[in-house]
Amino acid sequence: MKIYDISIPISEDMIVYKNRTEKKPVFNIVADYDKNSVYETDICLNLHTGTHVDAPLHVFKNGQMVDKYPLEKFCGDAIVIDLSIIEGCIDREHLTDKDIQINDIVILKTKNSEDAIFNFDFTYLSISGARYLSEKKIKTVGIDGLGIERNQADHATHKELLGQNIPIIEGLHLKDVKEGRYQFIGFPISIASVEASLLRAVLIEK
Amino acid sequence: MKIYDISIPISEDMIVYKNRTEKKPVFNIVADYDKNSVYETDICLNLHTGTHVDAPLHVFKNGQMVDKYPLEKFCGDAIVIDLSIIEGCIDREHLTDKDIQINDIVILKTKNSEDAIFNFDFTYLSISGARYLSEKKIKTVGIDGLGIERNQADHATHKELLGQNIPIIEGLHLKDVKEGRYQFIGFPISIASVEASLLRAVLIEK
Repeated sequence: MKIYDISIPISEDMIVYKNRTEKKPVFNIVADYDKNSVYETDICLNLHTGTHVDAPLHVFKNGQMVDKYPLEKFCGDAIVIDLSIIEGCIDREHLTDKDIQINDIVILKTKNSEDAIFNFDFTYLSISGARYLSEKKIKTVGIDGLGIERNQADHATHKELLGQNIPIIEGLHLKDVKEGRYQFIGFPISIASVEASLLRAVLIEK
Repeated sequence: MKIYDISIPISEDMIVYKNRTEKKPVFNIVADYDKNSVYETDICLNLHTGTHVDAPLHVFKNGQMVDKYPLEKFCGDAIVIDLSIIEGCIDREHLTDKDIQINDIVILKTKNSEDAIFNFDFTYLSISGARYLSEKKIKTVGIDGLGIERNQADHATHKELLGQNIPIIEGLHLKDVKEGRYQFIGFPISIASVEASLLRAVLIEK
Protein backbone atom coordinates (compact mmCIF):
# COMPACT_ATOMS: atom_id res chain seq x y z
CA MET A 1 0.00 0.00 0.00
CA LYS A 2 1.52 3.29 -1.07
CA ILE A 3 0.31 6.50 0.60
CA TYR A 4 0.79 9.80 -1.22
CA ASP A 5 0.78 12.92 0.91
CA ILE A 6 -1.07 15.54 -1.14
CA SER A 7 -1.07 18.26 1.54
CA ILE A 8 0.82 21.55 1.67
CA PRO A 9 2.94 21.89 4.85
CA ILE A 10 1.98 24.86 7.01
CA SER A 11 4.95 27.14 7.72
CA GLU A 12 5.66 30.83 8.08
CA ASP A 13 7.10 31.04 4.54
CA MET A 14 4.42 29.00 2.76
CA ILE A 15 2.51 30.34 -0.23
CA VAL A 16 -0.64 32.22 0.80
CA TYR A 17 -3.52 33.59 -1.26
CA LYS A 18 -2.43 36.66 -3.24
CA ASN A 19 0.62 36.94 -0.91
CA ARG A 20 -1.52 38.80 1.62
CA THR A 21 0.37 39.36 4.88
CA GLU A 22 -2.73 38.70 6.98
CA LYS A 23 -2.99 35.24 5.40
CA LYS A 24 0.47 34.18 6.62
CA PRO A 25 0.36 31.81 9.58
CA VAL A 26 2.13 33.06 12.71
CA PHE A 27 4.04 30.67 14.98
CA ASN A 28 4.80 31.50 18.61
CA ILE A 29 7.00 29.22 20.70
CA VAL A 30 5.43 29.48 24.17
CA ALA A 31 7.79 27.04 25.93
CA ASP A 32 11.30 25.91 25.04
CA TYR A 33 14.33 24.32 26.66
CA ASP A 34 15.94 27.61 27.69
CA LYS A 35 13.35 28.07 30.44
CA ASN A 36 11.08 25.00 30.45
CA SER A 37 11.18 21.21 30.50
CA VAL A 38 8.91 20.98 27.44
CA TYR A 39 8.60 22.66 24.04
CA GLU A 40 5.22 24.08 22.97
CA THR A 41 3.98 26.15 20.06
CA ASP A 42 0.94 28.33 19.49
CA ILE A 43 -0.21 28.99 15.94
CA CYS A 44 -2.51 31.65 14.48
CA LEU A 45 -3.88 31.11 11.03
CA ASN A 46 -6.72 31.70 8.65
CA LEU A 47 -8.85 28.60 8.13
CA HIS A 48 -8.22 28.83 4.35
CA THR A 49 -4.47 28.27 4.80
CA GLY A 50 -2.80 25.46 2.86
CA THR A 51 -4.88 22.30 2.41
CA HIS A 52 -8.40 23.06 3.63
CA VAL A 53 -12.08 22.47 2.90
CA ASP A 54 -14.76 25.11 2.39
CA ALA A 55 -18.29 24.70 3.74
CA PRO A 56 -21.41 26.52 2.47
CA LEU A 57 -21.12 29.25 5.15
CA HIS A 58 -18.00 30.49 3.30
CA VAL A 59 -20.17 31.92 0.48
CA PHE A 60 -23.80 31.63 1.70
CA LYS A 61 -25.22 33.69 4.54
CA ASN A 62 -26.53 31.21 7.13
CA GLY A 63 -24.92 28.41 5.11
CA GLN A 64 -24.02 25.08 6.64
CA MET A 65 -20.93 24.98 8.84
CA VAL A 66 -17.98 22.68 8.26
CA ASP A 67 -18.71 20.44 11.26
CA LYS A 68 -22.02 19.42 9.67
CA TYR A 69 -20.34 17.55 6.81
CA PRO A 70 -20.63 13.78 7.26
CA LEU A 71 -17.24 12.07 7.56
CA GLU A 72 -18.11 9.90 4.54
CA LYS A 73 -17.57 12.98 2.32
CA PHE A 74 -13.85 12.76 3.06
CA CYS A 75 -12.96 9.16 2.25
CA GLY A 76 -13.59 6.84 -0.65
CA ASP A 77 -13.08 6.29 -4.35
CA ALA A 78 -11.20 9.12 -6.02
CA ILE A 79 -10.13 10.02 -9.53
CA VAL A 80 -7.15 12.26 -10.20
CA ILE A 81 -7.60 14.09 -13.50
CA ASP A 82 -4.47 15.58 -15.03
CA LEU A 83 -5.29 18.97 -16.55
CA SER A 84 -1.75 20.34 -16.39
CA ILE A 85 -1.77 21.40 -20.02
CA ILE A 86 -4.70 23.79 -19.51
CA GLU A 87 -4.10 27.54 -19.20
CA GLY A 88 -6.72 29.70 -17.54
CA CYS A 89 -9.80 27.79 -16.57
CA ILE A 90 -11.11 24.25 -16.59
CA ASP A 91 -14.39 24.10 -18.50
CA ARG A 92 -17.00 21.41 -19.04
CA GLU A 93 -15.31 20.36 -22.29
CA HIS A 94 -12.12 19.43 -20.44
CA LEU A 95 -13.99 16.99 -18.21
CA THR A 96 -16.56 15.24 -20.40
CA ASP A 97 -14.15 12.56 -21.72
CA LYS A 98 -12.97 11.61 -18.22
CA ASP A 99 -14.24 8.53 -16.38
CA ILE A 100 -16.01 10.39 -13.55
CA GLN A 101 -18.41 8.15 -11.61
CA ILE A 102 -21.31 8.98 -9.27
CA ASN A 103 -20.01 9.57 -5.74
CA ASP A 104 -16.38 10.04 -6.86
CA ILE A 105 -14.02 12.34 -5.05
CA VAL A 106 -12.71 14.29 -8.05
CA ILE A 107 -9.16 15.64 -7.74
CA LEU A 108 -8.20 18.25 -10.35
CA LYS A 109 -4.46 18.31 -11.02
CA THR A 110 -3.34 21.48 -12.79
CA LYS A 111 -0.10 23.30 -13.40
CA ASN A 112 -0.72 25.07 -10.06
CA SER A 113 1.14 22.16 -8.39
CA GLU A 114 4.34 23.35 -10.09
CA ASP A 115 4.16 26.92 -8.72
CA ALA A 116 6.95 27.87 -6.29
CA ILE A 117 5.42 31.31 -5.65
CA PHE A 118 1.83 32.55 -5.70
CA ASN A 119 0.63 32.72 -9.30
CA PHE A 120 -2.04 35.39 -9.79
CA ASP A 121 -3.05 33.62 -13.01
CA PHE A 122 -3.60 30.25 -11.33
CA THR A 123 -5.75 27.66 -13.08
CA TYR A 124 -9.31 27.50 -11.77
CA LEU A 125 -12.61 25.74 -12.34
CA SER A 126 -15.18 27.68 -14.38
CA ILE A 127 -18.90 27.67 -13.67
CA SER A 128 -19.43 25.34 -16.64
CA GLY A 129 -16.92 22.86 -15.20
CA ALA A 130 -18.53 23.11 -11.77
CA ARG A 131 -22.00 22.48 -13.24
CA TYR A 132 -20.72 19.39 -15.03
CA LEU A 133 -19.35 17.99 -11.76
CA SER A 134 -22.67 18.70 -10.02
CA GLU A 135 -24.55 16.92 -12.79
CA LYS A 136 -22.26 13.90 -12.41
CA LYS A 137 -23.28 13.79 -8.71
CA ILE A 138 -19.74 13.63 -7.42
CA LYS A 139 -19.12 13.40 -3.69
CA THR A 140 -16.37 15.99 -3.20
CA VAL A 141 -13.98 18.03 -5.36
CA GLY A 142 -10.36 18.95 -4.74
CA ILE A 143 -7.91 21.19 -6.59
CA ASP A 144 -4.27 22.23 -6.27
CA GLY A 145 -4.94 25.97 -6.26
CA LEU A 146 -5.50 27.98 -3.10
CA GLY A 147 -8.80 28.95 -4.72
CA ILE A 148 -11.08 26.89 -6.95
CA GLU A 149 -11.98 30.15 -8.70
CA ARG A 150 -10.41 33.59 -9.01
CA ASN A 151 -11.75 37.10 -9.48
CA GLN A 152 -15.34 35.90 -9.91
CA ALA A 153 -17.15 38.51 -7.88
CA ASP A 154 -20.26 36.37 -7.50
CA HIS A 155 -18.32 33.27 -6.37
CA ALA A 156 -20.27 31.29 -8.97
CA THR A 157 -18.09 28.15 -8.86
CA HIS A 158 -18.17 27.99 -5.07
CA LYS A 159 -21.93 28.56 -5.02
CA GLU A 160 -22.64 25.92 -7.65
CA LEU A 161 -20.67 23.24 -5.77
CA LEU A 162 -21.41 24.18 -2.16
CA GLY A 163 -25.07 24.74 -3.11
CA GLN A 164 -25.14 21.06 -4.13
CA ASN A 165 -23.45 20.10 -0.85
CA ILE A 166 -20.21 19.17 -2.62
CA PRO A 167 -17.29 20.04 -0.32
CA ILE A 168 -14.48 22.00 -2.00
CA ILE A 169 -10.96 21.05 -0.96
CA GLU A 170 -8.41 23.68 -1.94
CA GLY A 171 -4.63 23.79 -1.59
CA LEU A 172 -3.80 20.22 -2.54
CA HIS A 173 -0.28 19.38 -3.69
CA LEU A 174 -0.43 17.00 -6.64
CA LYS A 175 2.99 17.26 -8.28
CA ASP A 176 3.94 13.66 -7.43
CA VAL A 177 0.60 12.04 -8.30
CA LYS A 178 -0.37 10.70 -11.71
CA GLU A 179 -3.80 10.61 -13.30
CA GLY A 180 -5.75 7.55 -12.21
CA ARG A 181 -7.95 6.04 -9.56
CA TYR A 182 -7.08 6.01 -5.84
CA GLN A 183 -8.62 5.93 -2.40
CA PHE A 184 -8.77 9.41 -0.88
CA ILE A 185 -8.65 10.05 2.87
CA GLY A 186 -8.71 13.54 4.33
CA PHE A 187 -10.90 14.16 7.37
CA PRO A 188 -11.02 17.85 8.36
CA ILE A 189 -10.13 18.95 11.88
CA SER A 190 -13.30 19.11 13.99
CA ILE A 191 -13.95 22.83 14.55
CA ALA A 192 -17.32 24.10 15.74
CA SER A 193 -19.31 26.87 14.01
CA VAL A 194 -16.91 27.88 11.24
CA GLU A 195 -16.88 28.03 7.44
CA ALA A 196 -13.77 25.95 6.71
CA SER A 197 -11.25 23.60 8.24
CA LEU A 198 -7.74 22.27 7.74
CA LEU A 199 -7.06 18.70 6.70
CA ARG A 200 -4.24 16.28 5.93
CA ALA A 201 -5.13 14.72 2.61
CA VAL A 202 -3.68 11.49 1.28
CA LEU A 203 -4.21 9.26 -1.72
CA ILE A 204 -3.76 5.50 -1.43
CA GLU A 205 -2.76 3.56 -4.51
CA LYS A 206 -5.18 0.76 -5.26
CA MET B 1 -18.77 0.50 7.11
CA LYS B 2 -19.35 2.51 10.29
CA ILE B 3 -17.06 5.44 11.04
CA TYR B 4 -16.73 6.61 14.65
CA ASP B 5 -15.53 10.16 15.15
CA ILE B 6 -13.25 10.02 18.20
CA SER B 7 -12.12 13.66 18.04
CA ILE B 8 -12.91 16.57 20.36
CA PRO B 9 -14.44 19.55 18.50
CA ILE B 10 -12.38 22.73 18.79
CA SER B 11 -14.43 25.64 20.14
CA GLU B 12 -13.97 28.61 22.43
CA ASP B 13 -15.68 26.81 25.33
CA MET B 14 -13.97 23.43 24.96
CA ILE B 15 -12.12 21.78 27.85
CA VAL B 16 -8.45 22.82 27.97
CA TYR B 17 -5.56 21.51 30.06
CA LYS B 18 -5.92 22.60 33.70
CA ASN B 19 -8.44 25.25 32.54
CA ARG B 20 -5.56 27.58 31.66
CA THR B 21 -6.79 30.71 29.88
CA GLU B 22 -3.81 30.73 27.51
CA LYS B 23 -4.79 27.24 26.33
CA LYS B 24 -8.24 28.36 25.13
CA PRO B 25 -8.48 28.70 21.36
CA VAL B 26 -9.40 32.16 20.11
CA PHE B 27 -11.66 32.63 17.07
CA ASN B 28 -11.69 35.83 15.06
CA ILE B 29 -14.22 36.33 12.25
CA VAL B 30 -12.25 38.37 9.69
CA ALA B 31 -14.99 38.59 7.04
CA ASP B 32 -18.76 38.26 7.36
CA TYR B 33 -21.93 39.17 5.48
CA ASP B 34 -22.33 42.57 7.12
CA LYS B 35 -19.41 43.94 5.10
CA ASN B 36 -18.20 41.19 2.76
CA SER B 37 -19.40 38.66 0.20
CA VAL B 38 -17.68 35.80 2.03
CA TYR B 39 -17.29 34.58 5.60
CA GLU B 40 -13.79 33.82 6.94
CA THR B 41 -12.36 32.93 10.31
CA ASP B 42 -8.88 33.11 11.83
CA ILE B 43 -8.03 30.86 14.74
CA CYS B 44 -5.23 31.02 17.32
CA LEU B 45 -4.50 27.92 19.32
CA ASN B 46 -1.91 25.89 21.13
CA LEU B 47 -0.88 22.79 19.18
CA HIS B 48 -1.86 20.61 22.18
CA THR B 49 -5.52 21.65 21.93
CA GLY B 50 -8.17 18.93 21.68
CA THR B 51 -7.20 15.88 19.65
CA HIS B 52 -3.48 16.14 18.85
CA VAL B 53 -0.27 14.16 18.55
CA ASP B 54 2.99 14.82 20.37
CA ALA B 55 6.38 14.39 18.69
CA PRO B 56 9.73 13.84 20.47
CA LEU B 57 10.59 17.59 20.35
CA HIS B 58 7.79 18.12 22.91
CA VAL B 59 9.93 16.56 25.68
CA PHE B 60 13.42 16.10 24.17
CA LYS B 61 15.73 19.00 23.30
CA ASN B 62 16.53 18.64 19.57
CA GLY B 63 13.94 15.84 19.37
CA GLN B 64 12.26 14.88 16.13
CA MET B 65 9.56 17.20 14.81
CA VAL B 66 6.02 16.13 14.05
CA ASP B 67 6.38 16.39 10.27
CA LYS B 68 9.03 13.63 10.34
CA TYR B 69 6.54 10.95 11.41
CA PRO B 70 5.75 8.61 8.52
CA LEU B 71 2.06 8.64 7.56
CA GLU B 72 1.88 4.89 8.23
CA LYS B 73 2.03 5.66 11.99
CA PHE B 74 -1.48 7.11 11.73
CA CYS B 75 -3.49 4.38 10.03
CA GLY B 76 -3.94 0.68 10.55
CA ASP B 77 -5.02 -2.02 12.96
CA ALA B 78 -6.15 -0.64 16.29
CA ILE B 79 -7.31 -2.06 19.59
CA VAL B 80 -9.54 -0.08 21.93
CA ILE B 81 -8.95 -1.18 25.53
CA ASP B 82 -11.67 -0.24 28.02
CA LEU B 83 -10.05 0.80 31.31
CA SER B 84 -12.98 2.91 32.52
CA ILE B 85 -13.07 1.19 35.91
CA ILE B 86 -9.54 2.30 36.77
CA GLU B 87 -8.94 5.25 39.11
CA GLY B 88 -5.61 7.05 39.03
CA CYS B 89 -3.16 5.47 36.66
CA ILE B 90 -2.96 2.64 34.18
CA ASP B 91 -0.14 0.29 35.10
CA ARG B 92 1.46 -2.68 33.37
CA GLU B 93 -0.84 -5.07 35.26
CA HIS B 94 -3.92 -3.51 33.65
CA LEU B 95 -2.60 -4.24 30.16
CA THR B 96 -0.97 -7.67 30.30
CA ASP B 97 -4.19 -9.66 29.77
CA LYS B 98 -5.17 -7.61 26.70
CA ASP B 99 -4.67 -8.85 23.13
CA ILE B 100 -2.10 -6.23 22.08
CA GLN B 101 -0.27 -7.19 18.88
CA ILE B 102 2.99 -5.92 17.38
CA ASN B 103 2.35 -2.77 15.32
CA ASP B 104 -1.08 -2.12 16.89
CA ILE B 105 -2.40 1.37 17.39
CA VAL B 106 -3.42 1.07 21.06
CA ILE B 107 -6.32 3.27 22.16
CA LEU B 108 -6.77 3.58 25.92
CA LYS B 109 -10.38 4.30 26.89
CA THR B 110 -10.70 5.61 30.46
CA LYS B 111 -13.31 7.40 32.51
CA ASN B 112 -11.80 10.66 31.16
CA SER B 113 -14.22 10.34 28.21
CA GLU B 114 -17.11 10.97 30.63
CA ASP B 115 -15.72 14.28 31.98
CA ALA B 116 -17.77 17.38 31.17
CA ILE B 117 -15.23 19.68 32.82
CA PHE B 118 -11.46 19.43 33.25
CA ASN B 119 -10.71 16.79 35.88
CA PHE B 120 -7.44 17.48 37.70
CA ASP B 121 -7.39 13.81 38.76
CA PHE B 122 -7.68 12.49 35.22
CA THR B 123 -6.60 8.91 34.50
CA TYR B 124 -3.13 8.62 33.01
CA LEU B 125 -0.60 6.04 31.87
CA SER B 126 2.17 5.26 34.35
CA ILE B 127 5.78 4.60 33.38
CA SER B 128 5.22 0.87 33.94
CA GLY B 129 2.28 0.90 31.53
CA ALA B 130 4.29 2.87 28.99
CA ARG B 131 7.22 0.43 29.24
CA TYR B 132 4.86 -2.48 28.65
CA LEU B 133 3.52 -0.86 25.46
CA SER B 134 7.09 -0.19 24.27
CA GLU B 135 8.03 -3.82 24.89
CA LYS B 136 5.01 -4.94 22.86
CA LYS B 137 6.37 -2.86 19.95
CA ILE B 138 3.12 -1.06 19.31
CA LYS B 139 2.90 1.48 16.49
CA THR B 140 1.13 4.38 18.19
CA VAL B 141 -0.77 5.04 21.43
CA GLY B 142 -3.86 7.16 22.02
CA ILE B 143 -5.72 8.18 25.17
CA ASP B 144 -8.83 10.19 26.05
CA GLY B 145 -7.09 12.55 28.47
CA LEU B 146 -5.58 15.86 27.42
CA GLY B 147 -2.36 14.46 28.86
CA ILE B 148 -1.05 10.89 28.85
CA GLU B 149 0.55 11.67 32.24
CA ARG B 150 0.06 14.28 34.94
CA ASN B 151 2.32 15.97 37.46
CA GLN B 152 5.31 13.81 36.56
CA ALA B 153 8.06 16.39 36.60
CA ASP B 154 10.40 14.24 34.50
CA HIS B 155 7.76 13.47 31.83
CA ALA B 156 8.71 9.80 32.19
CA THR B 157 5.72 8.40 30.28
CA HIS B 158 6.19 10.79 27.36
CA LYS B 159 9.94 10.08 27.27
CA GLU B 160 9.51 6.31 27.36
CA LEU B 161 7.07 6.32 24.41
CA LEU B 162 8.48 9.16 22.30
CA GLY B 163 11.99 7.81 22.94
CA GLN B 164 10.85 4.61 21.21
CA ASN B 165 9.35 6.66 18.37
CA ILE B 166 5.78 5.79 19.42
CA PRO B 167 3.55 8.80 18.65
CA ILE B 168 1.28 9.84 21.56
CA ILE B 169 -2.22 10.94 20.57
CA GLU B 170 -3.97 12.85 23.36
CA GLY B 171 -7.46 14.27 23.61
CA LEU B 172 -9.44 11.46 22.02
CA HIS B 173 -13.16 11.17 22.72
CA LEU B 174 -14.07 7.53 23.29
CA LYS B 175 -17.43 7.64 25.07
CA ASP B 176 -19.29 6.04 22.16
CA VAL B 177 -16.73 3.35 21.33
CA LYS B 178 -16.61 -0.12 22.82
CA GLU B 179 -13.57 -2.27 23.51
CA GLY B 180 -12.52 -4.21 20.44
CA ARG B 181 -10.56 -4.12 17.21
CA TYR B 182 -10.96 -1.41 14.58
CA GLN B 183 -9.12 0.38 11.80
CA PHE B 184 -7.75 3.72 12.99
CA ILE B 185 -7.24 6.70 10.68
CA GLY B 186 -5.96 10.05 11.94
CA PHE B 187 -3.34 11.83 9.85
CA PRO B 188 -2.02 14.98 11.58
CA ILE B 189 -2.10 18.34 9.83
CA SER B 190 1.20 18.93 8.01
CA ILE B 191 2.99 21.63 10.01
CA ALA B 192 6.70 22.28 9.59
CA SER B 193 9.21 22.42 12.47
CA VAL B 194 6.90 21.99 15.47
CA GLU B 195 6.48 19.54 18.35
CA ALA B 196 2.81 18.57 17.88
CA SER B 197 -0.09 18.74 15.48
CA LEU B 198 -3.87 18.54 15.38
CA LEU B 199 -5.70 15.63 13.83
CA ARG B 200 -9.19 14.30 13.11
CA ALA B 201 -9.21 10.76 14.41
CA VAL B 202 -11.71 8.09 13.41
CA LEU B 203 -12.23 4.41 14.04
CA ILE B 204 -13.73 2.18 11.39
CA GLU B 205 -15.63 -0.89 12.47
CA LYS B 206 -14.27 -4.03 10.87
